[in-house]
Amino acid sequence: MKAYGVTNSNLDSMIEFDKQMETPQGRDILVKILGVSINPVDIATRKKVQETKEPKILGYDGYGIVEALGPEASKFDVGEKVFFAGDYTRDGSYQEYEIIDERIVARAPKETSVEKSVAMPLVTLTASELLYEKLHINPAMDNRDKTILIINGAGGVGSIAIQLAHLAGLKVIATASTDEKVKWVKDLGADLVVNHHQDLIKQVHDLGIENVDYIIGLSDNDPHWQEIVELIKPLGIFATITNLRESQVADLKQKSVDFAWEWMFTKAKFKLAAMSTQGEYLEKLADGLDKGTIDSTVTKVFHGFNLDNLKRATKLVEAGHMMGKVVVKA
Amino acid sequence: MKAYGVTNSNLDSMIEFDKQMETPQGRDILVKILGVSINPVDIATRKKVQETKEPKILGYDGYGIVEALGPEASKFDVGEKVFFAGDYTRDGSYQEYEIIDERIVARAPKETSVEKSVAMPLVTLTASELLYEKLHINPAMDNRDKTILIINGAGGVGSIAIQLAHLAGLKVIATASTDEKVKWVKDLGADLVVNHHQDLIKQVHDLGIENVDYIIGLSDNDPHWQEIVELIKPLGIFATITNLRESQVADLKQKSVDFAWEWMFTKAKFKLAAMSTQGEYLEKLADGLDKGTIDSTVTKVFHGFNLDNLKRATKLVEAGHMMGKVVVKA
Repeated sequence: MKAYGVTNSNLDSMIEFDKQMETPQGRDILVKILGVSINPVDIATRKKVQETKEPKILGYDGYGIVEALGPEASKFDVGEKVFFAGDYTRDGSYQEYEIIDERIVARAPKETSVEKSVAMPLVTLTASELLYEKLHINPAMDNRDKTILIINGAGGVGSIAIQLAHLAGLKVIATASTDEKVKWVKDLGADLVVNHHQDLIKQVHDLGIENVDYIIGLSDNDPHWQEIVELIKPLGIFATITNLRESQVADLKQKSVDFAWEWMFTKAKFKLAAMSTQGEYLEKLADGLDKGTIDSTVTKVFHGFNLDNLKRATKLVEAGHMMGKVVVKA
Repeated sequence: MKAYGVTNSNLDSMIEFDKQMETPQGRDILVKILGVSINPVDIATRKKVQETKEPKILGYDGYGIVEALGPEASKFDVGEKVFFAGDYTRDGSYQEYEIIDERIVARAPKETSVEKSVAMPLVTLTASELLYEKLHINPAMDNRDKTILIINGAGGVGSIAIQLAHLAGLKVIATASTDEKVKWVKDLGADLVVNHHQDLIKQVHDLGIENVDYIIGLSDNDPHWQEIVELIKPLGIFATITNLRESQVADLKQKSVDFAWEWMFTKAKFKLAAMSTQGEYLEKLADGLDKGTIDSTVTKVFHGFNLDNLKRATKLVEAGHMMGKVVVKA
């Protein structure tokens, strides 16, 4: 079967090669891939690849048809359409057939296209874990008295985090830096928008808001650190998927603020029982996409699942100016 | 009235001086002090005092009799005995009469001595907020499948955190460094004890425990950082009251572990509605002390609320070898 992999940290090293088909074991299933989406983590992972003869298969978001079941797999039938966000410790979705644990997989939406569906798993799992597990927001409760600031609202995770926070009833402040992105985040449900290239403290205060209950950091945190420390409410929570380098968490102590890391791949990497929650989040996502309560954030689709399109799609994401998600479809 | 204050960072600068009595305003009450206890925060705060003519009145834990009520105070009657852990932004308990917001005060235990009672508020509030708010432990749930590691179990906060974690049903691993302290933490409810002067990872693994759900850091965290990073479970929580200097929170990212700060004074400093939870925690403490479900950890009492005893008690705590709490009683 065909697979696409890199042999070093350069995109140029991506090649098509022939890979031996495997037979699924345990709770694994074999999925024929019909579409993938490109995430920043694909690029960050490639940049860490050491020169190797065995090509590293990137790609996490996947959509496809179940082709075979491991002896303990019971969640799906052969022929069903599924989608998933993958497992960082295994070969990714840039291949014709992928082996994946059924617990982190869900049935694909019934009424929603491949491209709209496959754009969403990784960003939705990340946003769901951020909101429900890290910020401890219960979407079934009345959250109207809570305010969240989402730094980099127009990015992949931001675009779904805005929707989920809005659905949970919070007041959502998103950051966005161009008129086009301001419109985008408002359409997704942001109540208020501020520009992360200008003083966030002044802008939030000018909105009549002194402090926010929650902040999500979806871009480099160091440049915004003093703003985060100032704007977060005492006993609030700051959660992030990116980094903290020069800045000191000690700055959060007087306010007894929590600093929470979210990495979507933790559950599968450590084979935690909690990995099944990812299948459950994806079931809710499929339902939300079909019902129209959640909008897919796909903005660019390449038709044809091949080396050339994977490279072109990656270049587009790597340039860093994309709003929404980029998909490659069979 | 008599008050005791320091005019610089040295204990020698502590003097007795005459302070004007104040009339309580709003929800404040005036309390005649019958006993105080010495906490490490008293010493840390004194060390930051800049040369000043107006003596800084330290001391947070207090026990006394309500002498007067502010116009909006309704929780207590004049003549009732109360105890509290204080407010960092106001004059402390090293004075004959103290003004304090009634919301962070509770009725003193009925059957328990002044010295046993006043040893407990600050450490109990800190431990309660650590366990129930930062680690999100619900003591009414079945927590038998959860394990907590308490670094520096024999100290003030550790000695009550062990008791509260044990009462909540968790498996408690405490660290202690001498035979006397090992016995102390076991008597308080520690299931297992390890020595923080030796390799914590090896000792915990030798107990047949791979990872722990929660870690509480109650001593300098940097020397134990790699042990904390290794021993904490993926999706676990590390909560601390001390510091993090050279060490990087980024080390917790792969496991999606939360880093949570606890500072007991946050609620009162920022005048949060949540400050009333401190009065509620202290009511439960009073009840627990009277019923014998919670043991006071007082180990040394100075009789006579005067300058000499405050200095002697402080020296004892400052030497850093105390197990349990030191109290000065009228």
